[in-house]
Amino acid sequence: MLARGGAAQAVSDRAWLDGMLAFEAGLARAQARAGVISEAEAEAVVAACGRDYDPAEIGADAGAIGNPAGPLVKALQAGTDAPVHRGATSQDVVDTAAMLVARAALSAIREDLGGAADAAARLAAEHRDTPAIGRTLLQQAVPTTFGLKAAGWMTGLDEARAGLGRVRLSVQLGGAAGTLAGNGLEVLAALAQELGLEEPVLPWHTLRGRIGELAGALGVAAGAVAKPARAIGLLAQNEVAEVREAAGGGSTAMAHKHNPVAAICALGCARQAPGLVATLLAAMTQEHERAAGAWHSEWRPLCDLLVTAGSAAAWLRVSLEGLQVDAERMRANLGDSDLDVGEAPRLADRALEARP
Amino acid sequence: MLARGGAAQAVSDRAWLDGMLAFEAGLARAQARAGVISEAEAEAVVAACGRDYDPAEIGADAGAIGNPAGPLVKALQAGTDAPVHRGATSQDVVDTAAMLVARAALSAIREDLGGAADAAARLAAEHRDTPAIGRTLLQQAVPTTFGLKAAGWMTGLDEARAGLGRVRLSVQLGGAAGTLAGNGLEVLAALAQELGLEEPVLPWHTLRGRIGELAGALGVAAGAVAKPARAIGLLAQNEVAEVREAAGGGSTAMAHKHNPVAAICALGCARQAPGLVATLLAAMTQEHERAAGAWHSEWRPLCDLLVTAGSAAAWLRVSLEGLQVDAERMRANLGDSDLDVGEAPRLADRALEARP
Amino acid sequence: MLARGGAAQAVSDRAWLDGMLAFEAGLARAQARAGVISEAEAEAVVAACGRDYDPAEIGADAGAIGNPAGPLVKALQAGTDAPVHRGATSQDVVDTAAMLVARAALSAIREDLGGAADAAARLAAEHRDTPAIGRTLLQQAVPTTFGLKAAGWMTGLDEARAGLGRVRLSVQLGGAAGTLAGNGLEVLAALAQELGLEEPVLPWHTLRGRIGELAGALGVAAGAVAKPARAIGLLAQNEVAEVREAAGGGSTAMAHKHNPVAAICALGCARQAPGLVATLLAAMTQEHERAAGAWHSEWRPLCDLLVTAGSAAAWLRVSLEGLQVDAERMRANLGDSDLDVGEAPRLADRALEARP
Amino acid sequence: MLARGGAAQAVSDRAWLDGMLAFEAGLARAQARAGVISEAEAEAVVAACGRDYDPAEIGADAGAIGNPAGPLVKALQAGTDAPVHRGATSQDVVDTAAMLVARAALSAIREDLGGAADAAARLAAEHRDTPAIGRTLLQQAVPTTFGLKAAGWMTGLDEARAGLGRVRLSVQLGGAAGTLAGNGLEVLAALAQELGLEEPVLPWHTLRGRIGELAGALGVAAGAVAKPARAIGLLAQNEVAEVREAAGGGSTAMAHKHNPVAAICALGCARQAPGLVATLLAAMTQEHERAAGAWHSEWRPLCDLLVTAGSAAAWLRVSLEGLQVDAERMRANLGDSDLDVGEAPRLADRALEARP
Repeated sequence: MLARGGAAQAVSDRAWLDGMLAFEAGLARAQARAGVISEAEAEAVVAACGRDYDPAEIGADAGAIGNPAGPLVKALQAGTDAPVHRGATSQDVVDTAAMLVARAALSAIREDLGGAADAAARLAAEHRDTPAIGRTLLQQAVPTTFGLKAAGWMTGLDEARAGLGRVRLSVQLGGAAGTLAGNGLEVLAALAQELGLEEPVLPWHTLRGRIGELAGALGVAAGAVAKPARAIGLLAQNEVAEVREAAGGGSTAMAHKHNPVAAICALGCARQAPGLVATLLAAMTQEHERAAGAWHSEWRPLCDLLVTAGSAAAWLRVSLEGLQVDAERMRANLGDSDLDVGEAPRLADRALEARP
Repeated sequence: MLARGGAAQAVSDRAWLDGMLAFEAGLARAQARAGVISEAEAEAVVAACGRDYDPAEIGADAGAIGNPAGPLVKALQAGTDAPVHRGATSQDVVDTAAMLVARAALSAIREDLGGAADAAARLAAEHRDTPAIGRTLLQQAVPTTFGLKAAGWMTGLDEARAGLGRVRLSVQLGGAAGTLAGNGLEVLAALAQELGLEEPVLPWHTLRGRIGELAGALGVAAGAVAKPARAIGLLAQNEVAEVREAAGGGSTAMAHKHNPVAAICALGCARQAPGLVATLLAAMTQEHERAAGAWHSEWRPLCDLLVTAGSAAAWLRVSLEGLQVDAERMRANLGDSDLDVGEAPRLADRALEARP
Repeated sequence: MLARGGAAQAVSDRAWLDGMLAFEAGLARAQARAGVISEAEAEAVVAACGRDYDPAEIGADAGAIGNPAGPLVKALQAGTDAPVHRGATSQDVVDTAAMLVARAALSAIREDLGGAADAAARLAAEHRDTPAIGRTLLQQAVPTTFGLKAAGWMTGLDEARAGLGRVRLSVQLGGAAGTLAGNGLEVLAALAQELGLEEPVLPWHTLRGRIGELAGALGVAAGAVAKPARAIGLLAQNEVAEVREAAGGGSTAMAHKHNPVAAICALGCARQAPGLVATLLAAMTQEHERAAGAWHSEWRPLCDLLVTAGSAAAWLRVSLEGLQVDAERMRANLGDSDLDVGEAPRLADRALEARP
Repeated sequence: MLARGGAAQAVSDRAWLDGMLAFEAGLARAQARAGVISEAEAEAVVAACGRDYDPAEIGADAGAIGNPAGPLVKALQAGTDAPVHRGATSQDVVDTAAMLVARAALSAIREDLGGAADAAARLAAEHRDTPAIGRTLLQQAVPTTFGLKAAGWMTGLDEARAGLGRVRLSVQLGGAAGTLAGNGLEVLAALAQELGLEEPVLPWHTLRGRIGELAGALGVAAGAVAKPARAIGLLAQNEVAEVREAAGGGSTAMAHKHNPVAAICALGCARQAPGLVATLLAAMTQEHERAAGAWHSEWRPLCDLLVTAGSAAAWLRVSLEGLQVDAERMRANLGDSDLDVGEAPRLADRALEARP
């Protein structure tokens, strides 16, 4: 319920393990391309990475060293004589896995943001000329159209989706102190290609701008979801009754109620984002060549932020795709307001035309 | 690794389910005591609550109604004709379960805070007269004693532990709109007794001071852990070398290193707390008789905050219980400073005597 | 507008300067009582502290040393041969001044919280039996009374006020490394008496539990204000129209509007609190005997938090003291609901009786 | 001391007033260009906007209506018969002024970030081949170069600066409900040109992605400053002694100390950012056509965030521009480490070449 959509699965323990294995296999392939190890050695490492490992077992041993890369490398090395993890350090594995995990989660989140925006776009087009009272400070003000309201939701969602698309997803490889000792620049470039991640100018083990930007973009996405989710909750109030969720839920105590459950869950998820963003931004203060605590403080908030932003988007999509609009009630709520909706229809057109 | 100590288990899905079952069983018993239902009915409900339910199944159906209480009540009612959940609402179940879950988690956290404080107390006593350089703004200043440093850690931990002990853990029962319709004040009092929770003056479904106070106290506890965790990391630097963790870990790339892993993990956990506290405080803005989103936004942050504060305390305890202090190196780092440690030894005595 | 109430003045630059001067004067008096300096010297220092200093000038020189105590001590010492600031350090001055500033601000905040709670209490008593629809998830649910709603607001405010009253306001004196070198325990006790602040067991220069507890209590207070502020905004919607602010404002564009400005400002202020609390909790990670940055990061958030929580309380008081309740409209909004308000009237009585 | 650099002045009350006046003058000019009012009327409004108004007076009246635009419009209209503020609403004025204020503040912040990055670049070039021990988890690990450390600082600062340059600074004009009633699209476009701000697709009065993106970018900038500020504090420890601030400060109690005051102040400022970012992201949940509280909660955090991020950048610039590097001590701290610095020199070259 707090983990709707694809992001939750994308950040599972299994997904992290797969990301770490992808790093080790990709590193071996990249090292073979650069001539650092032989083709045969690379094949042996890749084969070892293809076997089945238990995330719970790896995780259980993580405490001794302070991260999950150590036990995994040990497990891999137990299965082959070829050099595993050569010239790499724990953080290379974990940071690159984080990028792979984030890539998959972002794909799911962007899909749901896009779906929600599409649904809002349909509402905007359909209700281009449907007059509705505008409300400021929760008081009735002057008329607008429901189409313009929906166009605003759409634009906010589209912009947030675009923001997530601009996030840099870069490979991390630096070795013990970030100098690429033992690997070299050629391996870095080859590894980026192998994994389909951006090649950074510098190893970014303690340059956490990427994490901060990702956090900021997810925070904005959650905010873009929260806006229509809040609006739907308010418009669905019995006393307002301008919209209604198709599949609203009852309650354990009152079967007659028609709660906008999807919008409520969307808001419940979105509200969790700002605090997590703050944690990730605060974690940018990382010491020397690897942080003593700040790095470790990123993992759970990053996962939670991806999950909660994704869940918010998925719930909003459900809400918007089934939203029932009562144009007559909107007309009634306008009372004897004049019906000058200004440029509202043209603004909605303009927003629809500007969609990416 | 980010979930050391007993808090993680105390907030598991199973623990939440058990808490909800305890509420329903307790409610039936309380209703029988108040004469609202018969003894036989109460026994039937209690028996239904004693059967085995699958948290994953209950959770899967939670989305439709927007919380996990609905599916559970349905499952319970399927097993008995006696009135289950009579006069109660979803939030009564979930909020009371949250208090039971928090009680168990707080017990574990307080145990580890106490253990860490005890270890610090031993260091304070043992090093009552061990001179060490005081450092301000990360620069050497004037002498103090290691005993006073450790006494400060102890006092901070003891105070945080006491703060967690002052948190109000209250039963929640109000029914659909918080009026106790169908149950009455007598049932409220009896339910509080059944569950060993405080009886609130009013149902607190949208009065979230309790959650806010709990959050604040957990945030302070995390901060009290972070202080010594940071100090240990700094004192263990090779260039300072005044302390060393007994079981410090190596690294995947550098076997010679002796990392203060426990202190690092403690700090990594503690740093996650402030953002979660902010989320819970922001969630206090709850609408009318049940919030549309803010309530739902509490669950995960509350669990995560209990887990991360508890994990921080548990890691710090490990670090402090095995801390090796190098008094000679402390003496050497003092250089030619005079050795006027002021009232440091007496202050440490005073702090030790003031322990609760 | 964002700084209503007495807290803003209590945290002004002038108030900080006065707090620092009170520390220096109190220290001299305490030292004379303990025989560390002579009575004549103390009188000279106290006289110097009584002269007029310009906060802007003191502040301008603060950058060179990194805090405002240095320039002030220099200015004081320029006016007397008696020993100013003897055995004290910058942090002693600033932390003690912070406590004096907080004491004054808390007094103002508690006054306004109390006033708001009193107004809510009057509403609770007056509308003990006024039926009103209860709303859950922003949907009409079952009846309650307006008296119980108001009693809930009152209880939340009273509890938050009590929480602020439990905050420890302690003197800070430790000297360069917190050992009381040059002053001793007797001066500490005397200084606490001079300033009417609590005497701590240990100097708390890097034990920031007091700041964390204060932050948490202010965060809870802001949340307790936000709850009724939000409710008033929702109940004042034209479509609901159950309450109305006496002095609601118009707008630059729509003179006909009656905005619940006080409730809106209260909410606008309260929403700023959680992020500030997070900053202060994160600042508890303070290094060794004085933090290199974390301490400095407390000053502005602490002031802002006091101001914004106080302003929220002051605005809510305005809103509640003039709140007009439309019992007929409440009755109308109930529609054909049955009128079983359960224990709502007795709960309101109970809450009123339980007031501190 | 917490408000170094140009951002503080850029967000002063006077700057906000000037921004609001620029909006009103620009609006009149744009309306004249679009034929909505006459040239003579526009000139009269522009003239009224050129007179002197007192920010304190305007602010004092803001409480009655809930924002400062009302009193300003009243003051302007008192000075002319021409139509002031025609078709605009309070939020148009305040939001556009916020963008103008942010533009000026960002210019100052980017200047200081650039200056700090330039200083880091000089260090990177000068110390391209200076070996230094790399430290992970605050423990000595393997060698790197000081040049690569400095290149990392530079890259982080350059990237953060670029991020601030991508922020959308857009005019806001929508009128009472955001429909441009009375003004039209032509006035919107002309106003954007008049003020040199971006023309948005839609009025963004409750689409707060722009504020969220700005907040995120400022949070990342603060984090990019915190990283080298923390490093300098650690490298300047007496026991490490690899760098030293040119103008480090003493203390009120210990004249012999050489505190890295600029780096400490930079960190003290930077640490205040994450909580403010969270507040601004949480404020994106804005109701209908104008938020009842969330909008009002943006103003102070936005100002504070601009000031604290800017102050952090300005302090770091001071620190880096005067940073003294002790290459011999770096060599000594390497002990008997081998001196394989891997690709560190080439990485630094690469980063220097990649500068924007």
